[in-house]
Order: sequence, then C-alpha cells, then structure tokens
Amino acid sequence: MKNTHVPTDVSHKRIPVAILGATGAVGQRMVQLLENHPWFEIAALTGSERTIGRPYGELVRWMLDSEPLAPIAQMVVQPSDTPLDVAIALSALPTDAAREFEPLWAHRVAVCSNASAYRMAPDVPLLIPEVNPEHLALIDYQRKQRDWGGCLITNPNCASIGITLALKPLHRAFGIKKIHVATLQAISGAGYPGVASLDIIDNIIPNIANGGEEDKIERETRKLLGTVVDHKEIHDASMTISAQVTRVPVIDGHTALLSIGFEQQPTVEQVIATLEGFQAPESVRKLPSAPARPIIVRHEADRPQPRRDRAAGNGMSASVGRVRPCPLLDVRMVALSHNTIRGAAGGALLNAELLVATGVVS
Amino acid sequence: MKNTHVPTDVSHKRIPVAILGATGAVGQRMVQLLENHPWFEIAALTGSERTIGRPYGELVRWMLDSEPLAPIAQMVVQPSDTPLDVAIALSALPTDAAREFEPLWAHRVAVCSNASAYRMAPDVPLLIPEVNPEHLALIDYQRKQRDWGGCLITNPNCASIGITLALKPLHRAFGIKKIHVATLQAISGAGYPGVASLDIIDNIIPNIANGGEEDKIERETRKLLGTVVDHKEIHDASMTISAQVTRVPVIDGHTALLSIGFEQQPTVEQVIATLEGFQAPESVRKLPSAPARPIIVRHEADRPQPRRDRAAGNGMSASVGRVRPCPLLDVRMVALSHNTIRGAAGGALLNAELLVATGVVS
Amino acid sequence: MKNTHVPTDVSHKRIPVAILGATGAVGQRMVQLLENHPWFEIAALTGSERTIGRPYGELVRWMLDSEPLAPIAQMVVQPSDTPLDVAIALSALPTDAAREFEPLWAHRVAVCSNASAYRMAPDVPLLIPEVNPEHLALIDYQRKQRDWGGCLITNPNCASIGITLALKPLHRAFGIKKIHVATLQAISGAGYPGVASLDIIDNIIPNIANGGEEDKIERETRKLLGTVVDHKEIHDASMTISAQVTRVPVIDGHTALLSIGFEQQPTVEQVIATLEGFQAPESVRKLPSAPARPIIVRHEADRPQPRRDRAAGNGMSASVGRVRPCPLLDVRMVALSHNTIRGAAGGALLNAELLVATGVVS
Amino acid sequence: MKNTHVPTDVSHKRIPVAILGATGAVGQRMVQLLENHPWFEIAALTGSERTIGRPYGELVRWMLDSEPLAPIAQMVVQPSDTPLDVAIALSALPTDAAREFEPLWAHRVAVCSNASAYRMAPDVPLLIPEVNPEHLALIDYQRKQRDWGGCLITNPNCASIGITLALKPLHRAFGIKKIHVATLQAISGAGYPGVASLDIIDNIIPNIANGGEEDKIERETRKLLGTVVDHKEIHDASMTISAQVTRVPVIDGHTALLSIGFEQQPTVEQVIATLEGFQAPESVRKLPSAPARPIIVRHEADRPQPRRDRAAGNGMSASVGRVRPCPLLDVRMVALSHNTIRGAAGGALLNAELLVATGVVS
Repeated sequence: MKNTHVPTDVSHKRIPVAILGATGAVGQRMVQLLENHPWFEIAALTGSERTIGRPYGELVRWMLDSEPLAPIAQMVVQPSDTPLDVAIALSALPTDAAREFEPLWAHRVAVCSNASAYRMAPDVPLLIPEVNPEHLALIDYQRKQRDWGGCLITNPNCASIGITLALKPLHRAFGIKKIHVATLQAISGAGYPGVASLDIIDNIIPNIANGGEEDKIERETRKLLGTVVDHKEIHDASMTISAQVTRVPVIDGHTALLSIGFEQQPTVEQVIATLEGFQAPESVRKLPSAPARPIIVRHEADRPQPRRDRAAGNGMSASVGRVRPCPLLDVRMVALSHNTIRGAAGGALLNAELLVATGVVS
Repeated sequence: MKNTHVPTDVSHKRIPVAILGATGAVGQRMVQLLENHPWFEIAALTGSERTIGRPYGELVRWMLDSEPLAPIAQMVVQPSDTPLDVAIALSALPTDAAREFEPLWAHRVAVCSNASAYRMAPDVPLLIPEVNPEHLALIDYQRKQRDWGGCLITNPNCASIGITLALKPLHRAFGIKKIHVATLQAISGAGYPGVASLDIIDNIIPNIANGGEEDKIERETRKLLGTVVDHKEIHDASMTISAQVTRVPVIDGHTALLSIGFEQQPTVEQVIATLEGFQAPESVRKLPSAPARPIIVRHEADRPQPRRDRAAGNGMSASVGRVRPCPLLDVRMVALSHNTIRGAAGGALLNAELLVATGVVS
Repeated sequence: MKNTHVPTDVSHKRIPVAILGATGAVGQRMVQLLENHPWFEIAALTGSERTIGRPYGELVRWMLDSEPLAPIAQMVVQPSDTPLDVAIALSALPTDAAREFEPLWAHRVAVCSNASAYRMAPDVPLLIPEVNPEHLALIDYQRKQRDWGGCLITNPNCASIGITLALKPLHRAFGIKKIHVATLQAISGAGYPGVASLDIIDNIIPNIANGGEEDKIERETRKLLGTVVDHKEIHDASMTISAQVTRVPVIDGHTALLSIGFEQQPTVEQVIATLEGFQAPESVRKLPSAPARPIIVRHEADRPQPRRDRAAGNGMSASVGRVRPCPLLDVRMVALSHNTIRGAAGGALLNAELLVATGVVS
Repeated sequence: MKNTHVPTDVSHKRIPVAILGATGAVGQRMVQLLENHPWFEIAALTGSERTIGRPYGELVRWMLDSEPLAPIAQMVVQPSDTPLDVAIALSALPTDAAREFEPLWAHRVAVCSNASAYRMAPDVPLLIPEVNPEHLALIDYQRKQRDWGGCLITNPNCASIGITLALKPLHRAFGIKKIHVATLQAISGAGYPGVASLDIIDNIIPNIANGGEEDKIERETRKLLGTVVDHKEIHDASMTISAQVTRVPVIDGHTALLSIGFEQQPTVEQVIATLEGFQAPESVRKLPSAPARPIIVRHEADRPQPRRDRAAGNGMSASVGRVRPCPLLDVRMVALSHNTIRGAAGGALLNAELLVATGVVS
C-alpha cells in the first residue's frame, strides 16, 4: 500500500479508494459522493460473483437522480474477496460478505465499513466524527492485536447515527440517563428491492429485522457515547434506552421521536442552546464532507420533516425540532437525518476523511 | 320527544336519529353505519349554512367506497342550530359549532358527540362502552345540573380511543403508572380536505394541532380510566402519560407504539393473556355495533398494520401486537384501531346504542 | 371425476374445486371469493414444491384484509403437477407452471385459468361471460382435438378485461374500428412481492413486462370481441388497437383512458345510453358472482377513480365515466375495474360458474 | 424604467426583477431559481392583499428543499397591482389577478408570465425558447397595438411545455398531423394546498380543471408549433390533437404518453436520431438557464420516470423514451418534464433570459 497521498499539501494526486459492494443502494451513494471528491478517487468497484468482469454502468440498476459519470460507468467490477492495492476501502457489503471479506482487506487497507458485522467488536471503532473521534485511539491496539497493516472502522446503523448526533451535546452537557425513542424509517433503509410496494403504500410496518433494528439502536448508541479505556476498549455509556421502530412510506430520511431523562435536568431553552451551539472539533469541521452545522434546530411547530429536511447540509446534518418538556422523562424532541447519506454512505466517507486528516491513512 | 321506541321488544319501528354535521368525513361515516341499522333510522341530517335546504346527495362530496342510499341522498339538509324532534343526535360538528349547538339539542335529545368541545367537562361522560360504561352514572347529575331532558355524552379523540381500549384490561389487572405513546396517525383523522398531498406524500408531519393532539391523548386517557365519585364527577386515573404524535401517509388507521409501566409488573405472557381474555360487560357485548372481540392480539412479528388490520371487527376492534419487555418501563406493544370508525363515527354510534340498552334513551 | 353436483337443484352438496397456485396474490383472492360460495367448496389447494405438505395458513403470506377461515388455513398444500379428483380447478399458476400442468389437469377436470399460457391457443376459449359466452362452443372441439375429458378455459389479462367489458356493447351497437388505450395499472397486478416500493412511491413506471402487457391488451381484446367460426375457431375482430401502459402507485384498480373510432359514429348520448342499457344474457345474470350491473356509468366530472370505484359490484363491475367527443377518433372515455377481482380471481370464478350453468360441468 | 443593464458586457450590476405572486408554489420556484442568477437579481416580491407589508420569509409557507436566502426572506411583500421600477417581472399570479394586473406592469416592464390569462391572445407570444423563438417578432406589433413600453410574453401550461419540446424537432423534420396524448400529472401542478391527500393517495383522478387542462394542451401545442404571419399574428399548426389527462400521486414531473401521426412517416430510428440531434439555436443555447440538451433520449425499457428523470438538465430538459411503432398512428413514445421548473418557473425565467439576449430588454 503506497502512502504517498497527502491531501493537505498541494499534491494533485488523489487517494485511491475502492468501493466494496458498489452495486447496491449504499454502494451507489458512495459512488455518487466520490464523484468530484477533493481528496479521493474511485480506483476500484467490487461486486458479487454475478457482477464480476462486467462494466459497472451496464449492470448497476441505478436508483439515484443523476447517473454515474462515464469513467466510473466503464470500470469493470472486481471481486469483493480479493484485496486490491488501494489506500482506503469504503464497504457497503452485506453483513455476511462483510464478516468474511473485510478482515482480508484490513490486512493492508483502511476499511471504512457501513456493515454491521464488526460494529460491536471490542477493538473496532464505531465512529461518528462529530461524536466520538477519540475512539480512533483503538486502532493501534486493533492493528497490534490482529496484526493488520490496515485497519477497520465502522459507522453506525442508519437510525442510530441521527439519534446519537442529536444526543451527543446533550449527553456531554447534562448527562443522559434514559432514552425512549420511536422511529419512522424510510424504505431506502431496506436496500433494493427491499420493501414491497404492496407492503407499504397506505401502510406502516411496525417492526424492522424482527427486533434487530431496535437492538442495534439500543446497543450502538451506548457504544458511541461510551469512553475509551486503556487505549484498547470502549466502556459503554450507562444509560437505559428503549427503541420502537417502524417502516413508513417515505423514500429517504429517518425520523426519531425522542424522550430523554437527564442526570442534571436542563430547561428547554438550555437544550436548544446546547444543540445550536454544538460544533464538531476543529479537525472534523474541515473535512470535505462535514456539514457546516452538524445539528440544525428547527423552530417551526411541524419540523423536521423527511422530505423538507433530509437534504440539510447535503444530507449530512441532523435536524432537530419540537424541543419541549416531557411529562414522563425530562425533554421530548424530534430528530431527523438522511439515512443513506449521513446514515450510511456519507457516514462511511466522513470516517474515511477523518482517517486521512488524523494521519491514520497517509 | 317521543319515548316509544323500544329496540328490545318486537316493535318494527326504529328510533329516529339526527346526524349533526352530516356532510364532513365523520358525518359521512355515520350515514354509512346507520344504513340498515337494526335499531336506528336516519330522521334528519344537518349541515352548515351553505348546505341547508339542499338534498344531501347533491352537495356531499362523498369520500367512502359505497354511496349513500337513495332515500338518504334525497333528504334535505337542515340547520344544525335548531333541535329537531328526534330521540338521538349523533354529532360530527366542528368544535366551535359543537360548543354552541350541542347544548341546545341536549335540552330534549340524547346527544352522542364526536366533538372535543365538552369531552373534559366534569359532568359530561367521555365514554367507551367496553372501557367505562359506569361513567354513564353522571347523566342524572348532568340533567339536574343543566336542567336538560336529553343529555350529552362524548367519545374520545380518534387516537385516545384505540390506546385506551388496549390499556383498560391491563390497568384493571396490573395498575398502570406510566405510559409513553408515540402515534402514527392517518390522514383521514384531519377531515376533508385536511392534509394537502404536497405535505404528506413521501413525508411525515411530526405534530398535529400544534401539540393539541398530544394534550388530548394525555388528558382523555386519564379521564377514561378514572372512577366515578359521588355520582357526579370523575377522578382521573393517576398515571403519567407522555404522547408524541405524527401524521403519516396512511388513509385510515392510527398506530400507537406503547411503553407501559405498571404497579404490579406482569410478565409478557400475562399481558397477552389479559388482552386476549378481555371482554366487554354482557350488556355491551350485545350492542349491534360492538365487535365480537374488542381487542385482537396478533402474534406475527410485524402486525398490526393499518391496511391489514384496520377493518378488524368491522373497524370496531383494536388490534395489538409485538408485546415484549421494555428496557425503560415494563412492557412495550403496538396498538392499532380504525380512526374514523372506532375512533369517531362508530364510537359515537356504540355510545348511542349503550344509551338505548341502559334505558337512558327509551 | 364425479359429476353429481347439480347446483341448480336443492342438493346440499357443493362442487369440489381445487385452487392451483393458491399461495400467490391471485390464489389468495380465489380462496377469499370461494369462502361461503353457494355452489363451490374448496377441496384442495396446490402450491410450489417449497410449500407442499405444509398447512396453508402457516405458509401463506396473506395480503388481503380478512384471513382465510380456519378449515382452509388447516388444509395441507398439495403439488400442482398431480391432478386431483375435483370437478373444477381454478388456476392461478405462473405462466410456465400453467403451460406444463394445466393440460394434465384438463384430462379430467374443467380448468378455469387466469394464466396467460393458453389464452391465445386457437381451441381455448378466452372468456368473459358477459362479453362472449358463445365462445364456449369451442369446448367440444377442444375435447375431441386433445382427447380431454375435462377442458381448459381462460380469462383475459387484468387490463384487457375491464376494457373489453366496457367496449362490448359499443362494438355490438356501432362497430369499433380503432382504439387507443392508455392504462394506469395498480401494483397488485404485478403480484407479490412484485413492484419494489423504491420503484413506485412518488413515481410512474411507463412500461409493464417490457411491452408484453401492451401486446396482450391489443391481441386479447380482438379475440374476445371475435366470432366463433365452424364451432372450432375464433376469428378476431378486425379492429386496430394501440395500447400504452404504465404502473402507478395505486393498490388495486386499473384505469384505462380510451379513444374509440366507430364504423357508425354514435353521439355521446347514444354511447352513454348503450353502456347503461348493457345487460349480460339471462343465464349469465343469474351466476352467483355476476354483478347486478356489469357496467356502471359515472356522471361526475372526475370519476371513475380506483379507490372509490374499484369495489363497485363487489369488484366485478366496470365503471365508465367522462364519455365525451374525441378530436382524433370519435369518442373518449375512462374505464376502471378491479384487477385482482374482475381482472383475475373473480373473472376465473365467473367462468367456472358459467361452465356449471351451461352444463359443461355437471 | 432604466435600460442600463447589459448582461453580456462585464458590468457587475444585475438586472432588477420583480416576482409577481411570489408566495405560491410557482413563485417560490422563481425565488429559488433567481438566487445566484448570473444576470438577474430579485428587486421586489409581490403578493395578495393579506401578505402586503410583511417580510417574505415570515409569511411564505415554503414548499421546497432549501430555504430562501436571508436577504430575500427579509424583503417586504408589495402589492401586485402597482407596477414597480424593474426591468422584468416574472409573473406567477393566479389567472384572474394576471388578467387584471399584468397589463398594468406591461406598460413599462417586460412581463414574463406563467399565467394562462393571455396565452392565447393573438398578439402575445406563447414561448418556449428552444421551440419558437421567432414568435418574439410579435412584440413590436404588441407594443404598438397596446401602446406599451414594456411587453407581455407567456410560457405554456405545465403539461404542454414538455410535450411540445419533444414534438418540435419531429414536426420540423416530418410534419405532425395527428397526436394522441395521455398525461399522468404531478400534484405540484395544482399548487398549494392543491390536491387533498384523501383524494390522491392510492388513487388516480382522471380529470384536471374539468376538461380545461385538456383544452389547453390541445390549443397551446398548436400555437407553439404555429408560424408568424405578417409580423403580427400566429397561424396555428394544422394538426389534430386529442388529450386525456390524469392526476397521479407523484410530487413533481408530468409524464405524457404520445402517439403521433406524420405527413412523412419516419422510421423509429429516424425519430430517435432526430430527437437526439435536436439543439436549440445558438442564441438560446447560451442562456444561463438553458439545459445542455433540451431533449434527452432514454434507451432503457422503463424510462423516463418522474422521480428519476425530472431533475435532468436541472429540471429544464425533457426526457423521452420508449420510442416504438404505433399500430394506430405512426410512432409512440413517452415524454417527461419537470412541471414546476421547465413547466412553470424555469420556463418563465428562460423566456426572460431570451428577452435580454435578443435585446428586447436591455
């Protein structure tokens, strides 16, 4: 693996990136976000056995607005199980393929994975740059432990990410003890073909992955808000979380209804001020895909809404609204974020950018 | 007001009923449910000033599947502000009109109202026959107090009704202390024209009536589960409720995600058994519009769903599913009911039937 | 095959019917329509290899409102490739399975198929009882030709059927020369899982089966309106038809925009009178599943509409509206029918009833 | 009216533009499209009586993704009936207001109107820059005739525009004699609140404006493809057009199913080549809002689709697909364009740019 790509100097060469599982819904978003990226260039696309050897543009069933640029469309899809000579791999692999192939790549490549396979592994950072960049400290231990030259970091589940982004400044300021969260999740979260139209038009499905989604939200949030101990593991935040999830007929954008109980009960005004004052660390703010404001507080009575707010910050901001007292816990509010950008492809990409900015990839 | 209509004997005459506000979405459902009703016949339809004197069939913008029967379509719409000689008035009036006109009718007529105007009045029963039929005891006091020959009873908000129906047997068996409820409410709950399509296709609106809907759910549920004191007032149940509501792109059927904390914590199996064993009192079970089972427990992982379960019990049953432990309170579950049948027109009609069965109307 | 079931006498025994391909969307509708059928009883359900030997209620992913009755739910699914001792088989088999298995059943059983495999075979009646009952005359020839004791008849494609039902009285009265038809077809026409929600919410797909649907509409309509020659073949009606089809985000109900050119140009009033005066032959009118009025003319400016008109005549009527002159051909109008009832399961069932009424099955 | 703004020189001053009726759905799009426009700047926003004197950002119910920039949000809304000192007025007024107020503005200002009030007036150009820029020749006559210092030009109905853009090169090459068009039109075409969600979810409405929309398509297309005679009037193209329109549950993007009969019948290949070869005149191609390709031919079997193709060319391109023979006329195809960009706000803006480029506004 060549380490000559330095985005911060004036080098005109961009860092070569492979997209693993590039034909699926999240892989397509990765392709879209990497077109014209200032630091990265797509060096390889991988796919399942059925797709290997064919030009990407021919086989992909493109789901997004625009189309892949001609040079990308002409790239020949390569196998996911054979690591290539790139600096970074963005992985949109399905869980089983991720479990098998990501460690192979991590021997030499920095893998930024959207898959759930290793999110809860003790030595794998589960990362949102604005929330817990200090979890990157695990990487040294991970490399030693696993004898890797590369590394493996993950981004959270598409629902966890917006919730945790909104909770982070409140947890830091007031200490969160209890969370009740009910989600209304978009169909794109299920991939393609995903949810049958006969199941979701004029309908709601009150479960996702047979409870698995709720489990992920409850566990990932605690890890994300946890602390690094001894440079080698994360102690989960000691809060109680109850999640109830639904699938709704919305294309993109997960909505979360939150009730929060704190150690030190803030006023509604303090909550709003804390959310509005939240900034990522300096090093994160300068990343190409970082939004100007990670959290946007809406003051209208009926926002945030998926169709109107999911594109905020190019799909990388969480929008929060309806901050008000809760009769049961302390404060209620509504949080929304774009599930395939911030919650998947954009989240993985921002993680990759952080690896470069912090010198993990150089 | 003639009191000669006795549905329980073999009389072939049916009780004359007026529908107040018959042209709106709920009024139309009342018309539909009264066609071929064994006890009642539509004697009058009232409407706003604009509609008075015109045949119902000509002016109504019919929203439902079937059409009104010819004799109903030919009825001339009458003013809402002038009580007529009927035994019962089913009221689908808007709040302000209800506040003004319902007391006028109650002087001589038994008014069963779907409007919110008097739901929280201390001497007005807020009634679900399967839940709190004993609240009818207020009527004597109400008549004395207000010098009415008729009476006024109300049914709850379209969201409260399904929730409370599902909670009643659990409250009786285990004592409910805390409730968190998140709702996904259908567009028909907003009447017609109601929600603009540009606001709700591919979208969620995370508020209804600027907080008013949440307030109704929190307050009505406590009154419904409360107890009659001294034959003249209701002491609210002393539970804490937090509601968060959303509007979703579903035609009919409100979904509620419930987390419940009990005085005596039951097992999940006990909750399911209690729900499945729930029966209305004998007198309620025999009402023409009462469903065979007020609560239907679904055992699939992804039910209840609005499109598949809203018609259960002809739209009069609440469907409950996904009963499971809650990390925060004790038990979580999903409840669903038809908002314009059980939650509005059918609820008012069942109340009217209870008035007849208990001899309040005779 | 026992031939003792005579529905027209007072026999209390009902005719045993097998449903082939009972687990799919159309098969489920057949199950639903046969519950409480006055003539028929479900004697067997067949399915694909994966489903054989399991109770129907356990394996079916039920798509409709109600659920299958307990005795049906407990029936063990049988293989589709082995004819059983029933009088009639309603076939909802996929095309390839239909091509292979339906002739096996037809050796002894009257097969009423919804599949497209044999619709255009010269000796197979393509039948709508109100439109071309005389095409049953082919059966004698078919039996002789194929040495069958049973027979095989088919109903048209879900889009052709509503269109042809609306066209039949006009063709008889004025002679149709040219038809332009544009369709807006419901998602249930694609079966389950069928159309992905990511493909159809906030979207239109302007093609179905890569032109195959348009071809079926153009060819089937001509056969349906054709005439029997020599008791052994159908001469297609000699009209020109151009079809353009789309898939739209509607659950049930296909809409067709029709422009029609006639041999003898009628006035709009004559067209309306002809449509309203249309009646099926006496023998067809008495069939249990026949609607009171095969064609319902709507006089509102904005009808028919799928959600409001698809249930007309229990889903067996075609609704027609907006009859008006056409600048290009002679008359324009909009026709709508329920694609999984009249256009599939109900169509096959009505055909089966006609076989009984005409003594083909006795 | 100052005429000093010359966009083609290096002047840093931009041309002041008023948006008439700026609070509605089309007005909002105009605001959005004028932000950061290279030639124009928003100098005034007008609204109805209710809105006058209030800051735009406070009263507008913003329907689009992003929000108006702060300086625009702070602009105080002015009355529509009092012309202001601007060079150009983009009008999104309702029809009646347009009829009354646009002539007042045209005395001194170049009015580019999206309203239908004057589209068919003999001396008013109905304009699509790529289609009939030569119709601008009417302006001299219009000014003389009406004694105006400004002028009035209009863009077509949101459905006509995409259709005509697709037809223009074919008409020029092969002569169109007959058109059958069926449209599936998005809800945003009805403005806000527009179509009630209860009318359109799981539904189709087979009429728009009670036939008025069909009439517009039939008449406007002929005027757009007509020829200027004597510098003072348009002779309509002598083709026969039959339109059938529907409203469908799609947010943005009108789909048109076209069947076309020609004077000189082309092959399908010739049609495709002609569409792909189509270019606007040089002067039009350089306009800031002109798309690189006015017509994009899709070669997939199931395109164009509203959600995937409406944003093509920043919403200014028409997408055409499924070009194939027609059994009834000569050729069938599907055309799609963005109804509130190309079909309304963007169309008016492109017209305004053409006025500047041709020196009508200088």
